[in-house]
Amino acid sequence: MLDLAKLQNRHWTLAERPVAGVEDRHFRLETSPVPQPGEGEFVVRTLFLSLAPVMRRYMIDGAGIEPPMAIGDTMYGRGVGEVVTSNHPDFAVGDCVHGKLGWQEFALTDGGDDKLMFKVSERGVPPYLFLGALGITGYSAYFGLFDISPPKTGETVLVSGAAGGVGSVVGPLAKLHGCRVIGIAGSDEKCALLTDRLRYDAAINYRGGNIEEAIGEAAPDGIDVFFDNVGGEILDAALLHLNRYARITSCGRISQYIDDDYALKNWALIGGNRAKLEGFFVYDYRDRFSEAERDLAKWHREGKLPVLVDIVEGLEAMPSALMRLYDGANVGKQVVKVADPLFLPKNAAAA
Amino acid sequence: MLDLAKLQNRHWTLAERPVAGVEDRHFRLETSPVPQPGEGEFVVRTLFLSLAPVMRRYMIDGAGIEPPMAIGDTMYGRGVGEVVTSNHPDFAVGDCVHGKLGWQEFALTDGGDDKLMFKVSERGVPPYLFLGALGITGYSAYFGLFDISPPKTGETVLVSGAAGGVGSVVGPLAKLHGCRVIGIAGSDEKCALLTDRLRYDAAINYRGGNIEEAIGEAAPDGIDVFFDNVGGEILDAALLHLNRYARITSCGRISQYIDDDYALKNWALIGGNRAKLEGFFVYDYRDRFSEAERDLAKWHREGKLPVLVDIVEGLEAMPSALMRLYDGANVGKQVVKVADPLFLPKNAAAA
Repeated sequence: MLDLAKLQNRHWTLAERPVAGVEDRHFRLETSPVPQPGEGEFVVRTLFLSLAPVMRRYMIDGAGIEPPMAIGDTMYGRGVGEVVTSNHPDFAVGDCVHGKLGWQEFALTDGGDDKLMFKVSERGVPPYLFLGALGITGYSAYFGLFDISPPKTGETVLVSGAAGGVGSVVGPLAKLHGCRVIGIAGSDEKCALLTDRLRYDAAINYRGGNIEEAIGEAAPDGIDVFFDNVGGEILDAALLHLNRYARITSCGRISQYIDDDYALKNWALIGGNRAKLEGFFVYDYRDRFSEAERDLAKWHREGKLPVLVDIVEGLEAMPSALMRLYDGANVGKQVVKVADPLFLPKNAAAA
Repeated sequence: MLDLAKLQNRHWTLAERPVAGVEDRHFRLETSPVPQPGEGEFVVRTLFLSLAPVMRRYMIDGAGIEPPMAIGDTMYGRGVGEVVTSNHPDFAVGDCVHGKLGWQEFALTDGGDDKLMFKVSERGVPPYLFLGALGITGYSAYFGLFDISPPKTGETVLVSGAAGGVGSVVGPLAKLHGCRVIGIAGSDEKCALLTDRLRYDAAINYRGGNIEEAIGEAAPDGIDVFFDNVGGEILDAALLHLNRYARITSCGRISQYIDDDYALKNWALIGGNRAKLEGFFVYDYRDRFSEAERDLAKWHREGKLPVLVDIVEGLEAMPSALMRLYDGANVGKQVVKVADPLFLPKNAAAA
């Protein structure tokens, strides 16, 4: 066992808010004692931390979904780790959890809504998967596809942002249901990943020409399900190829980051095709996360849910790992390995 | 009983296609023998015929939903009548049916998909109701509200085209579910009808000023259900007041008749609010029409489903009754009474 009293907690804090790009000087690596849990609290030792493009906005204004960080606060971030000491009735030493650990080696939490700690049941898979395909990202794909826009065997499923965290899971899930799956991504490299590694049947580079024609060529029988992570022009193009009774999951609207004035031309085709466009919030499904985790882990073990992950070693590499995202250097989900597990089976630590 | 061999069938035919407004000279009243049913056919004696704005387009190009009429063809139209002779196993003499009878006193049909004949179960209500609130129009309100956008007690329901055939039923149905119901219509007179006669809690004249502000004032707690018969700018304004988990039934897109290039500004609020926009096709529910008919008839008898109907007497008045629609002279559903019933109870004939 660890003697926590003898250890220090290394954590990254916000030193300065970025104005343009994110740079090293915006972060400071600090050291503090490992926290002691009070009544109803527990301490998680971080194994892997997740990096996401939204983090730059966390540093500036909370991105509208988190309270803005103050200078000196520990950087926000999701991670997966093991409970190493606990005064909480529902979390025991050795439990594996994922949630908002922050950029640090040890996180003190009561597991409440502000930290969203979820206990992992599947202990035989690499823990970083719970930061991607087997975590919130994967659950978004799972519920956004199966609950909001259930695909039927033989149908055509279109996915935008297909090489992203959610999209890279949606494709394999739709393939499992016997669908023809077409992905849209922003480069030829990403398109190659879709078809070579992520089980997509066809891929469209939306920067490669007329997106509307490209969808028509890739989906000559029309679109039955559109899992949309982008919105805007890509949504408009997809609407032109909508089949009757089509279902559209509006999962993300990345396009709005670029042009939030984009007006949708072909909206009337939704109603006209007896179709549906629906948004959702993954945390509304929290009572069913264990179901998603179980299915996704099973499919991953069976080789039906390939996962692209880019692992950087060491907490000290967090800022540079974040900058990789903005440079487009990562292939797949970007994570940082912080420590080896103490409690999880050894074979689960490897990819 | 009627001696059909001694009777003539008066029917209106298309004499000329309208270029601008509909005029008397576009129609011709003709006379022919009452048809005899062959095997699997039956003859319906018309009691009431329905008038609808779409009929002008039927006269020109079929409105995209019917094959275009030829000059000399009997005018298209829905009606309600009684079966007076039958060689069809499912339709007996005395049955009351509604369907595509055409502008005539006697219609020959096999009841098949091209005529969409539905047998009425409720025989204690005025038969013209089956051309409106208790017919396809009412079923559109019933399934479009309850199946596509089910309202909960205490929620706020907004209805566009609220004084129209479908909208005038949606309001009372939402009131039955304990909702606050706000209607949008195109004149102060129609707005007065909504609140005075059709159980709406509030009404907005969309020609009366800023529609977006008016919705905000009428629905200070936001919109939970939007039953949209219009689309376009009114949909855009409603989206700005959408609550989380709101449901939008896209029932009609009348706005597109005026501006089919209208691009929707606030589309991203659907997904962002975890909301839904969905179209539907009322004939997909034909197996459940009897359920809708039963419920709507019950609510009508209980006084909870008020119906506005404008009855003109006599088949010869069909062209002028149609022109009333384009003049805006009618208040409520426009029908023409063609004959008194032979089989239905006498009390059902009166309003």
